[in-house]
Amino acid sequence: QAQSSAKPVDLSGYERVKQELVAPPYAPKHDQVAQGGPKIVEIEMDTTERLMVVDEDTGASIWALTYNGSVPGPLIIVHEGDYVELTMRNPHDSQMEHNIDFHASTGALGGGGLTHIYPGEKVVLRWKATKAGCFTYHCAPGGAMIPYHVCHGMNGAIMVLPRDGLKDKDGNPLKYDKIAYMGEQDYYLPIDEDGNFKQYAIAGEDYPDSIAAMATLTPTHQVFNGAVGALTGPGALKFNVGETVLMVHNSCNVDSRPHLIGGHGDYVWETSFDVAPLTSMETWFVRGGSAAAAMYTFEQPGVYAYVNHNLIIAAIKGATAHFVVEGEWNNALMEQVTAPESFEA
Amino acid sequence: QAQSSAKPVDLSGYERVKQELVAPPYAPKHDQVAQGGPKIVEIEMDTTERLMVVDEDTGASIWALTYNGSVPGPLIIVHEGDYVELTMRNPHDSQMEHNIDFHASTGALGGGGLTHIYPGEKVVLRWKATKAGCFTYHCAPGGAMIPYHVCHGMNGAIMVLPRDGLKDKDGNPLKYDKIAYMGEQDYYLPIDEDGNFKQYAIAGEDYPDSIAAMATLTPTHQVFNGAVGALTGPGALKFNVGETVLMVHNSCNVDSRPHLIGGHGDYVWETSFDVAPLTSMETWFVRGGSAAAAMYTFEQPGVYAYVNHNLIIAAIKGATAHFVVEGEWNNALMEQVTAPESFEA
Amino acid sequence: QAQSSAKPVDLSGYERVKQELVAPPYAPKHDQVAQGGPKIVEIEMDTTERLMVVDEDTGASIWALTYNGSVPGPLIIVHEGDYVELTMRNPHDSQMEHNIDFHASTGALGGGGLTHIYPGEKVVLRWKATKAGCFTYHCAPGGAMIPYHVCHGMNGAIMVLPRDGLKDKDGNPLKYDKIAYMGEQDYYLPIDEDGNFKQYAIAGEDYPDSIAAMATLTPTHQVFNGAVGALTGPGALKFNVGETVLMVHNSCNVDSRPHLIGGHGDYVWETSFDVAPLTSMETWFVRGGSAAAAMYTFEQPGVYAYVNHNLIIAAIKGATAHFVVEGEWNNALMEQVTAPESFEA
Ligand SMILES: [Cu+2]
Ligand SMILES: [Cu+2]
Ligand SMILES: [Cu+2]
Ligand SMILES: [Cu+2]
Ligand SMILES: [Cu+2]
Ligand SMILES: [Cu+2]
Ligand SMILES: [Mg+2]
Ligand SMILES: [Mg+2]
Ligand SMILES: [Mg+2]
Ligand SMILES: [Mg+2]
Ligand SMILES: [Mg+2]
Ligand SMILES: [Mg+2]
Ligand SMILES: [Mg+2]
Ligand SMILES: [Mg+2]
Ligand SMILES: [Mg+2]
Repeated sequence: QAQSSAKPVDLSGYERVKQELVAPPYAPKHDQVAQGGPKIVEIEMDTTERLMVVDEDTGASIWALTYNGSVPGPLIIVHEGDYVELTMRNPHDSQMEHNIDFHASTGALGGGGLTHIYPGEKVVLRWKATKAGCFTYHCAPGGAMIPYHVCHGMNGAIMVLPRDGLKDKDGNPLKYDKIAYMGEQDYYLPIDEDGNFKQYAIAGEDYPDSIAAMATLTPTHQVFNGAVGALTGPGALKFNVGETVLMVHNSCNVDSRPHLIGGHGDYVWETSFDVAPLTSMETWFVRGGSAAAAMYTFEQPGVYAYVNHNLIIAAIKGATAHFVVEGEWNNALMEQVTAPESFEA
Repeated sequence: QAQSSAKPVDLSGYERVKQELVAPPYAPKHDQVAQGGPKIVEIEMDTTERLMVVDEDTGASIWALTYNGSVPGPLIIVHEGDYVELTMRNPHDSQMEHNIDFHASTGALGGGGLTHIYPGEKVVLRWKATKAGCFTYHCAPGGAMIPYHVCHGMNGAIMVLPRDGLKDKDGNPLKYDKIAYMGEQDYYLPIDEDGNFKQYAIAGEDYPDSIAAMATLTPTHQVFNGAVGALTGPGALKFNVGETVLMVHNSCNVDSRPHLIGGHGDYVWETSFDVAPLTSMETWFVRGGSAAAAMYTFEQPGVYAYVNHNLIIAAIKGATAHFVVEGEWNNALMEQVTAPESFEA
Repeated sequence: QAQSSAKPVDLSGYERVKQELVAPPYAPKHDQVAQGGPKIVEIEMDTTERLMVVDEDTGASIWALTYNGSVPGPLIIVHEGDYVELTMRNPHDSQMEHNIDFHASTGALGGGGLTHIYPGEKVVLRWKATKAGCFTYHCAPGGAMIPYHVCHGMNGAIMVLPRDGLKDKDGNPLKYDKIAYMGEQDYYLPIDEDGNFKQYAIAGEDYPDSIAAMATLTPTHQVFNGAVGALTGPGALKFNVGETVLMVHNSCNVDSRPHLIGGHGDYVWETSFDVAPLTSMETWFVRGGSAAAAMYTFEQPGVYAYVNHNLIIAAIKGATAHFVVEGEWNNALMEQVTAPESFEA
C-alpha cells in the first residue's frame, strides 16, 4: 500500500465538529437532515477489556473486548459526504492488540490495516462516508482473532444518513422521534466437564477454549446489548403512542430476523439507504455482518417484545428486548370481544 | 394496558361473514379481489393437543400442539381493511394453556396478551388487518414456552390480500388458480441413551427434554405439513400445465430457502404485498418467523419437488413436497437430445 | 412425462457456438451484450471423481464429485433466449451415477430427470434459458444422494445475461472488466474416534459416515473453490484501481453473507437480473441453493478479503478469498492521520 507517498488531501472548507458518543441503546445528538456542508466529525473510542456477566441466573461471564466499554460499541451518526475522524486508544492495562474495520469506509481492510494498536498506543484514522446506510464496525486483528474479538463483543454500528434525511419510496421525508440501538451478540462460552461455564482470570486466557466453542457454530448465548435481560425490566425502552422509533440493529457475525411482537416494520432498510425501504414487514432480516434499520410508529399502548424470531434464540439464548409504550388503547385496531371464560364440553 | 376504559368501536356498516377454515395444504374459499366493502370475517379455532407421528420410518412422534388439529394451523384469508374475529376454544381435555399472536395485527403482543386460555376456556378477539401480506400466527404463552409451543407445531398463516388483488411491479393484476399452503416445521425430538426417539404419555411431559434439545439449534426433523412425507406420494399436490399456483410458505421459527425443482418463483413476495414482487427467482427466502408467497405457472408436465434448498434439510430432515403436473411436454423448453448411452473410453 | 411423443422443436435460424469452459475462478469468453440473435451454446462436462485435499494443514481430504474436475464446476455464460446444449460424460473409472439439475431451466427436475448417467455413459440435454440471472446447477441423483453429491462439491453456476447486458435501476448500462467466480462449499468430513479426519479408498465409501456428519448441519469446512486457501496466497485474484469486478458467488446448499473487506457491493443482484440491483451494500445474502452477483469498482490499492461474514466460517471454517489490487492510495477516501504511537496513561 502506498499511503506514505500518496497526495495530501485538502480539507479546507470542512468544518470540524465533535460527536460525543453515548452508551447503547442511546444515540448521539445529531440532525436528521444535515445542516450546512460536509463536516469532519471527530470521535474518540477506547478499546476496553472488561469482565462482564452475560447471564445473572447462571453467572456466565466473559472477558468482553469492547469499544468504550459497551457491547455493542457506541452508535456513530454522520451524513453522507462527512468525514469520520477517529482517535482510538488501547488502554495501558489491556492484554491484547486491537484495531477497527468500518464497513462504511473504503480501503485498507476498512481501516483495519491502519489501526492496529497495542496496549498503551493510540492511532488517528480519517475516512469519508461515501455510502448511506447503517454499517457495522468491528475489531479484526487477523486470522482466528477476528471472530474471537467479534464474538467477545467488539463491534458496533455507524449510521450514515443521506444529507437530506430518510425518505419513503416516493421521496417523502421520514422522521423518527427516538432511536433504539441494539446490538445482537452471539457468545460461545466454554463449558467445563461438569457442565459449568468456565471462568478466566484475564482477557484472552479463554482463547483456545473459545476457538473450539466457536467451531460448533452454536452460540451458548445470543443477546441484545451484552447480556441476557440488558434491555428488559429496568433496561426496557420507553415510548408513547404516536411516537416513531428507528430501531438500529447491529449483528456483526450471525444472521438475525428481528420482529417487534405486536408491531411491525413500517419502513425497513435491510441493505442501504440508497434502496427504497421495504414496508409493512412482519419480520425483517439482518445479514450476519451488517447493521439495518426499521422504523415503527406506535399505535397501541403496552409492552412490545423486540426479538430474534428464531424463538429459541429469543427465549432460551437471550435475544429479547422490551419496549414499554404509554397511551390510549384503540379498540378499532384490536378488541378483546369476550374475555376468557369457561365453555361447556 | 387500558383496554377496559377504551372507547367502544363502531362497527355498523361492516358486513359479517363466516370463513370455514380447512385443513392444509388447502385454502378456504375466498375472493382474490374483494367484493364490496370491508367485512368482519368470523373464524373459529380449537387449540388441540394430539400425538402425531413425525416419521413413519422411525416411529418418531410428538405431542403436537395445534390450531384445529393440523400442523401448520389452517390458512386464513382476508382483505386489507377487514376485521378478523376469532373465537378460540381450548378443549377440556387439553393439558396446557394456549393463546395466539397474529403478526398481522397491532397491539397486545399481536393479541397474545388478550387470548390466554386454559383447558375448558374460550375467548373472542377481533383485530383489523391493516397490512397486506402473508403473516405467521402462533402460540406464545411466555418465556421458554414460546419456542416450546411453536416447535410443537402451534403456528400457521394468514394471507391479507390487497382489496384489488395481487399485482406485478407495473400494476397489472396477477391471478392464481390454486393455493398450495405449506408450513415448514422444525422439530427437536428428544433422544434416549440408546439413540431412540423418546415417547411420552401426555402433552407437555417432554418439556425439559425438549428445551435441552432446542438449545442445540439443530432440528432432528424439519418437515412440511407436520410429518416427513406429508406432501409426497398420496399427499402430493396435483396441477396441470398452464395452471398458476400460489405457494404460501409459513416458517414460524427457522429461516427457509424454498426452491421448486424444475420450476421457478415467477413472482415472489418475500416481505409484504406492499412491495413489488421479485421475479424469475431460483430460490427465495422465508425469514424465520414469517410467511411468504410465490407464484408459478407450470410450463411442463412431470413431478416437481418443492424443497428447502439446504438439501440436507430437504432430503435428510424431511422438508420436501411433491407437485405432480399433467400436460404436454414442450421440447422447445427442454429436450433430451440423446438418451444416456455408452461411450468409448 | 411425455417427452417421447412431444412435438419436435424447430431450431433452424439458431446459430451454433461452442463455449470452452474454463476452471474457476475464471469465466469463459463471452459478450456482455449479446451479438446477433439467440444461439445454441454447446458445452461439455465430465462428471469426474477425484481425491482432493480440503485443508493442507490437517490433511483433511474428500473424494470430491465434480463437473470437469473443479469445485465449483465451471461457470457457464449465455444470454436470455439462448439454448444451452450440454454433452455430459461420466468417465469409465467413476464409482457413481451422476446427473445435472439446472436451476435456470424449466421441467424434468431442471434436467435432472433426463440426465442420469452411469460410469461409461454420456447424455445430451438442450434447454432454453428463459430467465436472466445467476443460477446454481448441481447433481441430484435422488434422496439422500442429493445432499451427498452437492456436499462433495458437485455444483456450479450459470450466468444468463440479459441480451442487452446488465443495467442499473435507471436503465443505464453496467460493464465489468473481470469476473471473479467463487463457489462456497460446505463439507461435512467424518472424524474418527481419535478426532482425525477419516480417509477413504474410493469415491462413495464415505457415504454412511457422511450422512451422519451432514445430519449435524455443522460443516467441518466451508471454503471457496474447493479448499482452504484456494483463493489466497498464490491463488489470490489480481486487480487494478479503477477496474470493475463482477463477483459471481455460488452457494448450492448453505446461506452465505458475502462481504468484501475494505470494499462494497456497488451493485448487487441477490435474486435475478429482472430485479433492479441493490446498491451500496456492506454485506449481501446468497440464499442456500442459489448464485448471486455483485459488482465493485476498486478505489484503493491493497489487499481485500472476500469473506462469508459469519467470521467463524470465514476464519475457522475457511471461507476467505483475497483480491490484491494495485494502484495509488487516495487520502481523500481514507488517511492514517497519526500512526500508532504511545500515549501517557
Ligand atoms: Cu479487538
Ligand atoms: Cu467485517
Ligand atoms: Cu400453545
Ligand atoms: Cu411471532
Ligand atoms: Cu453426482
Ligand atoms: Cu437445486
Ligand atoms: Mg436467565
Ligand atoms: Mg450513495
Ligand atoms: Mg447495513
Ligand atoms: Mg423416513
Ligand atoms: Mg398497506
Ligand atoms: Mg410475511
Ligand atoms: Mg488451515
Ligand atoms: Mg425475464
Ligand atoms: Mg440466482
